[in-house]
Amino acid sequence: MLRTHTCGELTIRDLGKEVTLAGWVQKSRDLGGMTFIDIRDRYGVTQLTFNANEDAKICTQARELGREFVIQISGKVIERSSKNPKITTGDIEIKVSRLQVLNTAKLPPFLIEDDTDGGDDLRMRYRYLDLRRNPVRNNLILRHRMAQEVRNYLNGLNFIEVETPVLIKSTPEGARDFVVPSRMNAGEFYALPQSPQTFKQLLMVSGFDRYFQIVKCFRDEDLRADRQPEFTQIDCEMAFIEQEDILNVFEGLVRHLFKSIKGIDMDTFPRMTYADAMRLYGSDKPDLRFEMKFVELKSPEKQANPILNPRSGFPIFDQAELVIGINAKGCAEYTRKQLDELTDFIKRPQIGATGLIYCRHQADGILKSSVDKFFDEVQLQKWSQAFESKPGDLILILAGSGDKVRKQLSELRLEMGNRLGLRNKNTFSPLWVLDFPLLEWDEESQRYHAMHHPFTSPKTEDISLLDTNPAQVRANAYDMVLNGAEIGGESIRIHDKNLQALMFKHLGFSKEEAQKQFGFLMDAFEFGAPPHGGIAFGFDRIVSLFAGLDSIRDVIAFPKNNSGRDIMIDSPSTISDEQLKELKLGVEI
Amino acid sequence: MLRTHTCGELTIRDLGKEVTLAGWVQKSRDLGGMTFIDIRDRYGVTQLTFNANEDAKICTQARELGREFVIQISGKVIERSSKNPKITTGDIEIKVSRLQVLNTAKLPPFLIEDDTDGGDDLRMRYRYLDLRRNPVRNNLILRHRMAQEVRNYLNGLNFIEVETPVLIKSTPEGARDFVVPSRMNAGEFYALPQSPQTFKQLLMVSGFDRYFQIVKCFRDEDLRADRQPEFTQIDCEMAFIEQEDILNVFEGLVRHLFKSIKGIDMDTFPRMTYADAMRLYGSDKPDLRFEMKFVELKSPEKQANPILNPRSGFPIFDQAELVIGINAKGCAEYTRKQLDELTDFIKRPQIGATGLIYCRHQADGILKSSVDKFFDEVQLQKWSQAFESKPGDLILILAGSGDKVRKQLSELRLEMGNRLGLRNKNTFSPLWVLDFPLLEWDEESQRYHAMHHPFTSPKTEDISLLDTNPAQVRANAYDMVLNGAEIGGESIRIHDKNLQALMFKHLGFSKEEAQKQFGFLMDAFEFGAPPHGGIAFGFDRIVSLFAGLDSIRDVIAFPKNNSGRDIMIDSPSTISDEQLKELKLGVEI
Repeated sequence: MLRTHTCGELTIRDLGKEVTLAGWVQKSRDLGGMTFIDIRDRYGVTQLTFNANEDAKICTQARELGREFVIQISGKVIERSSKNPKITTGDIEIKVSRLQVLNTAKLPPFLIEDDTDGGDDLRMRYRYLDLRRNPVRNNLILRHRMAQEVRNYLNGLNFIEVETPVLIKSTPEGARDFVVPSRMNAGEFYALPQSPQTFKQLLMVSGFDRYFQIVKCFRDEDLRADRQPEFTQIDCEMAFIEQEDILNVFEGLVRHLFKSIKGIDMDTFPRMTYADAMRLYGSDKPDLRFEMKFVELKSPEKQANPILNPRSGFPIFDQAELVIGINAKGCAEYTRKQLDELTDFIKRPQIGATGLIYCRHQADGILKSSVDKFFDEVQLQKWSQAFESKPGDLILILAGSGDKVRKQLSELRLEMGNRLGLRNKNTFSPLWVLDFPLLEWDEESQRYHAMHHPFTSPKTEDISLLDTNPAQVRANAYDMVLNGAEIGGESIRIHDKNLQALMFKHLGFSKEEAQKQFGFLMDAFEFGAPPHGGIAFGFDRIVSLFAGLDSIRDVIAFPKNNSGRDIMIDSPSTISDEQLKELKLGVEI
Repeated sequence: MLRTHTCGELTIRDLGKEVTLAGWVQKSRDLGGMTFIDIRDRYGVTQLTFNANEDAKICTQARELGREFVIQISGKVIERSSKNPKITTGDIEIKVSRLQVLNTAKLPPFLIEDDTDGGDDLRMRYRYLDLRRNPVRNNLILRHRMAQEVRNYLNGLNFIEVETPVLIKSTPEGARDFVVPSRMNAGEFYALPQSPQTFKQLLMVSGFDRYFQIVKCFRDEDLRADRQPEFTQIDCEMAFIEQEDILNVFEGLVRHLFKSIKGIDMDTFPRMTYADAMRLYGSDKPDLRFEMKFVELKSPEKQANPILNPRSGFPIFDQAELVIGINAKGCAEYTRKQLDELTDFIKRPQIGATGLIYCRHQADGILKSSVDKFFDEVQLQKWSQAFESKPGDLILILAGSGDKVRKQLSELRLEMGNRLGLRNKNTFSPLWVLDFPLLEWDEESQRYHAMHHPFTSPKTEDISLLDTNPAQVRANAYDMVLNGAEIGGESIRIHDKNLQALMFKHLGFSKEEAQKQFGFLMDAFEFGAPPHGGIAFGFDRIVSLFAGLDSIRDVIAFPKNNSGRDIMIDSPSTISDEQLKELKLGVEI
């Protein structure tokens, strides 16, 4: 080893020891006859001292060191006169007797400090330098520790990690598959897996009983929001279980992560049906760090007992299927400008609402709405009761139809949560969302599609609805939500041939189509498939939530940008004609 | 859970318990009024009994079960009258009171038994059924446990597992890269990594200090021997170390695996230089489970003191640069037929020797050679001394030149090891081979190539030879060998710019070429690269050696065949014109 100790471990207990350290020059200061250098490695920082009076030569050498030079020093551990209680090594320094430059360094294009002056692009281009910064490195150490704990927990429950293939087969539905031309089988392609779905089900047919894998998956899609073309899943499957078993085992996994990584004892996770989540929060992944439930002033369900007069004279309400709102507590004093900002927010094309109605519950108890000419004090009192508003609150209302207006209000709710500081990154609110619909209507093909995949099992009691009201059929499908982000989910699978055939019929698959698309899995199911189900967690996402970060990019060592490019290595890139020729491929642009 | 216990855990201590099991019907026997069924899951087998006199209905039901049906049963644990000491559950059986068929099964195309009747192709096509067999499943459980222990060991030494990207950049030298067309960047390609080499070196520049990853790598090459297009490496790198540190840490890893997986305390691994390995065993990965070292009767080094008369009159010896042989102990009684077999063996085109000379050291002490007319008893006595032969031994000799004849003799040595039963799969002989040559001559391009990669550091004392005798320059490069298979290896890297420039000069790279091919790594090295080095282990190979298997295929859940095809999923395969169009690609066959 080129060192006897790391830069993060020497303390007052080591006084007098002769040590050798190696690392990077973090910073240096000259004070009269003394030179101080901070030497840094992954483990910490240690102060080095050089005294010009005692050893002029080495002091001169030290003064010539640039930032980020790689050095090796030997010297004696001595007590520091001005201690630094913020770091482990803050009580000591090294009086250096030998200094060797292991490597010089060009001046980095940005500061290697916790708060750097480098912009996003620059830091991505020099990602290897960005990774030297503590916060970035700590994210990856956190990721490592979390992967370790995931494995510890699942190993302890007899799960077996099995590596499934990366070079698989493209399916006709795999429009977003990355494909890989084979040189040995020219004209033919492998595909990269969007998930190991089929393989984990095959492993259940094989009797593996409890499978998991922390595994890279791939999707060649437009990278809206916070996606990466390659991402990591904690992929799991169990046999001889029911939905409740999956929920327990994997709630246990996440609780174990909270306990082992953050020292937090989480309560049992609340559960909510998909229907309730949509009705109360307008989202299948509600952020439960704050309440602010939806209140319905008018809805098809409330027709018998509406809070609004069905003929209020206010055309927007009278024509709307749904009038719903939230109570923004303590916001009655919002200025005109603030309310305009909210209106602009919901009118943005991504949200697409047409207007915002509000009602202030003033400190003096008086209710003042933006639609005072249509609603008198008595009517507004009814609103206030419905919203349980108190003096100082602000009621925000949207009108429209169905899921559309619910999703708009959901966005407004999250925005208010942000404004009110209710979405603290150190607060963690997990939630199971259950009973997802089995099918969703696809406008383009004018038929129902499986919401997850065609092997998802319907609730037994809903099977009869497949003929009469397919949209109402609930699946044994579940999502785990944390702070408004879906972190995991999947389903109990169909293992019964007849039910599977029924499903394919309802999805409009002929027997031949089903065979073509899912052939080998269908074949495998003929040989004795056990009841089974599983879950997959987005590992990047969970780590970023644990790290309190907004983007998954920050927990990936070498991420790609929004165009799927790695700007550090400049990839993707063109390949040589020779390579194309070997692959028997032509590029047609 | 659909069971209270697994099929592998009930023992005499559970007598009287009411239990529920679920699993596959392994086999069933009717004996008069009794039906016995073995139910199997991943954990074991339990015997079920059905008594026609006591419960005719359930007994009838049981008799209708086919092999591999998936069933759930409830019943009482009772003592077995004829016990089976071979299995954990052999003392008990379940008197079944309830039987439910969870799934029927078609008759499998081969027996789901330890010794199956299925051929290779059939078992690969139905890999999910092959995986039900104990030996196959146990291989994957072993693999899982070994991965766990690798992580335990490296975690314990402060290594961080970092996921490096799978979608990287193709390099001009990457003729065997799999490439991945990008839809979002049409006409451009990612490449799949042959190893995370550059990224792990970048992580060292980033100060990660100790990195590892159990990671899939990819190579689109002709799959001679026992290769797979996707394979798994234990990839590692350390900073601020010297070669000795790498050897110690990773010898420790393999010793830990032997201890934790097999309960074997391994001695310190022997070390041998590449030069000695070639000289004594004709191989850079000698199988040290048995001795049988090469003996040189004539060689350039022995010219001053040859064992052979330089003008023996036997033209094959007289013309050969090298006359070398082995002593096959106890084989003096080999028949003409056996000797012919050996001659045929070395004449096979893969080996390519022209002939075999032998000398029997008969039980009566007399030496009888196949070249008696050229060598008298006195001369043969000299051979015998050189080979330390005893009555009963057989000396086998090849003549030729340089490494070629050494490799031929190496094959013969291994063959004799096989014939003499000296290559026991339960004996483990590890070895470090050190001081590999830095460069190798490439006939095609008529220049020296880096044996491993251009960042491999030369031995300091050999640098001056770069100008005078490049082939003699030794590298700080090492391989770990186990039972004649290379299981890991790599090198200490060059971190010094000037030395790197010198290397590129000697490899015939212009500055521009070097920049183009290794640009971002070269750039990174400008910013303060620490001294570093690493190693990568072939995980598939190590597992197969631990499992006592010949092929890595058997330790891969879903392997590909020798043409790189997965015949279960039928991949690679053609993709739709639509997909090709989206990728702006044309297939030109």
